[in-house]
Amino acid sequence: MLLKERLSEILPLDQRAFEEAQRRTEDLLMPYLALGKLHELSWRVAGIMGRIPGALPRKVVMVGAGDHGVVEEGVSLFPQEVTRQMVFSFIKGWAAINVIARHVGARVVVVDFGVKGAPAPEWLEAKDRFYLMKVKEGTNNISKGPAMTLEEAEEVIRKGMEVFELEAEKGIDAIATGDMGIGNTTAAAAVICAITGHDPEEIVGRGTGLDEEGLRHKVEVVRRALEVNRPDPKDPLDILSKVGGLEIGGICGWILAGARARVPVVVDGFISTSAAMLAVLLEPKVKDYLFAGHRSAEKGHQKALEWLGLWPLLDLDMRLGEGTGACLAFEVLEAAVKVLAEMATFEEAGVSRAIK
Amino acid sequence: MLLKERLSEILPLDQRAFEEAQRRTEDLLMPYLALGKLHELSWRVAGIMGRIPGALPRKVVMVGAGDHGVVEEGVSLFPQEVTRQMVFSFIKGWAAINVIARHVGARVVVVDFGVKGAPAPEWLEAKDRFYLMKVKEGTNNISKGPAMTLEEAEEVIRKGMEVFELEAEKGIDAIATGDMGIGNTTAAAAVICAITGHDPEEIVGRGTGLDEEGLRHKVEVVRRALEVNRPDPKDPLDILSKVGGLEIGGICGWILAGARARVPVVVDGFISTSAAMLAVLLEPKVKDYLFAGHRSAEKGHQKALEWLGLWPLLDLDMRLGEGTGACLAFEVLEAAVKVLAEMATFEEAGVSRAIK
Repeated sequence: MLLKERLSEILPLDQRAFEEAQRRTEDLLMPYLALGKLHELSWRVAGIMGRIPGALPRKVVMVGAGDHGVVEEGVSLFPQEVTRQMVFSFIKGWAAINVIARHVGARVVVVDFGVKGAPAPEWLEAKDRFYLMKVKEGTNNISKGPAMTLEEAEEVIRKGMEVFELEAEKGIDAIATGDMGIGNTTAAAAVICAITGHDPEEIVGRGTGLDEEGLRHKVEVVRRALEVNRPDPKDPLDILSKVGGLEIGGICGWILAGARARVPVVVDGFISTSAAMLAVLLEPKVKDYLFAGHRSAEKGHQKALEWLGLWPLLDLDMRLGEGTGACLAFEVLEAAVKVLAEMATFEEAGVSRAIK
Repeated sequence: MLLKERLSEILPLDQRAFEEAQRRTEDLLMPYLALGKLHELSWRVAGIMGRIPGALPRKVVMVGAGDHGVVEEGVSLFPQEVTRQMVFSFIKGWAAINVIARHVGARVVVVDFGVKGAPAPEWLEAKDRFYLMKVKEGTNNISKGPAMTLEEAEEVIRKGMEVFELEAEKGIDAIATGDMGIGNTTAAAAVICAITGHDPEEIVGRGTGLDEEGLRHKVEVVRRALEVNRPDPKDPLDILSKVGGLEIGGICGWILAGARARVPVVVDGFISTSAAMLAVLLEPKVKDYLFAGHRSAEKGHQKALEWLGLWPLLDLDMRLGEGTGACLAFEVLEAAVKVLAEMATFEEAGVSRAIK
């Protein structure tokens, strides 16, 4: 199916379910709206799913991996081989995202959209949690030309959608998006600048821990990427192909597929948010399916959240990626869902209501 | 044992365990400190427990209940009988705190420190989750005189400690504090004003949902309570007895007992924070054992957190009490603990470290 056709299948929220959730909230055994932002979360989940769910038992965090040609400009503290090594660690269950996913009861799926080199045998053996969706062995250096072709950009989005659809066969009640790719804060910053029009100074952050000089250099690299490529701020495929990343395209794909399948999508930090912005440019209705898992410590993240009109469920100065913030935020989202589903009403509990 | 003797058994954090946790963090498979505030949480838990724990499986939320004579001034939207009715709901498992506790895998303990009227038979039958520790059937009206005697204030703190110690026999790895008491935001505001010296205008909030006029009246009631009683800002027992509440004293007791037993204490919102401030005045070392579960939407809460020097784990505009915010924050605290305990190091995973 063509991308355009699939996008046309992303529908608005179910207003009836949304309003039913609002009505039920009025009767819950507590002062009206006393659980603050949890209520809005539960209404939106109802609108997304078309019903008031009891819980979100089948949670998945999908981690997209890809390499970035721009690392040859010296924009990261870590060597490029770390992308590969971390894919292996995710598969082995050693990384932060594995710990947090076990904690919240989510499964981890790892996808190679563009890691340099052939997949290791251990990756291919891990059929229950690894997908090979490689479009290209890393992007080209965006400070010198486009990251990939337009065809590759569309292909990687389609492959992201495909991963979601294959996983959906096992059942998905909510997804968290995650990323791995040495150099990807540079690409994500370029995407966010291209979309919002902000100067790189305002968006580019320290990534894995650059010092002042490294940060200044990275700002210049992003500035050059934008000048060399001149991405069209209204054209998400143009932006992705010129200054994006393969995993950014893949993440964009499963965000679109999640919205199409009426599944709540919890977006992680800086990289995932850039992918979410591309998804919303492709189809504005996607926005209603998104939750911002957390506010990242990476510099431009707050501005990216503002562009999306999302508030973060957590605010803990995290800046790791991998989906860690979004995955931890599952706990807040599911608590909201359970409060609406499980709490007694004033009537059921025989408790007196407020004096009017 | 006298209160004073017990307080002398509250010790500083274990520096060796704290530093061991810091050292291990340096080697974890991620850019240094990339999980932000989670690291500080895990270090402090190690310092509290004297070791790096693997998890916090035995979590307890303790909900103290008491009535407030000041409700006769019309400071709450809900009738006084709701305190009783909610105790029944907690025991039955119908309330928000029950839902959230089930979600995070915590047990709920309900304590009557001063509810009006005799305990219902169903309360007494729920021996595994209800304690009768009644000191008095509700406080006196603080806008006319002291809430209770000095002896009662000390007694209710001791009873709070006793509850913790009885529950500790079943095992406690972390506690969250919770409250129920119609009118208790008025008492908590008076306590916070007495300690910080802030004017009631800056501290008093809408509680369960007062309108502008109701809020103005509540400010005046708190102002009168402070003028009539003149609590000594340096004397926590004087403050508790003059403008406090029975459940506030009980909560203060289990905060003290938690610190004494080297258990992490997650403090809920406005009411619990006022109790934590009293506990810190009684013994400043308590502060290192405290985590602020969330920032409440109740007006003066941020100022109370600043006085304690704590930052909130969650910030979701919740304002229900019952321990709901603290209990949900257990998830963040335990994630921090598990990250430190379960993640592989760079060496273990064979992943390249940052280029120096």
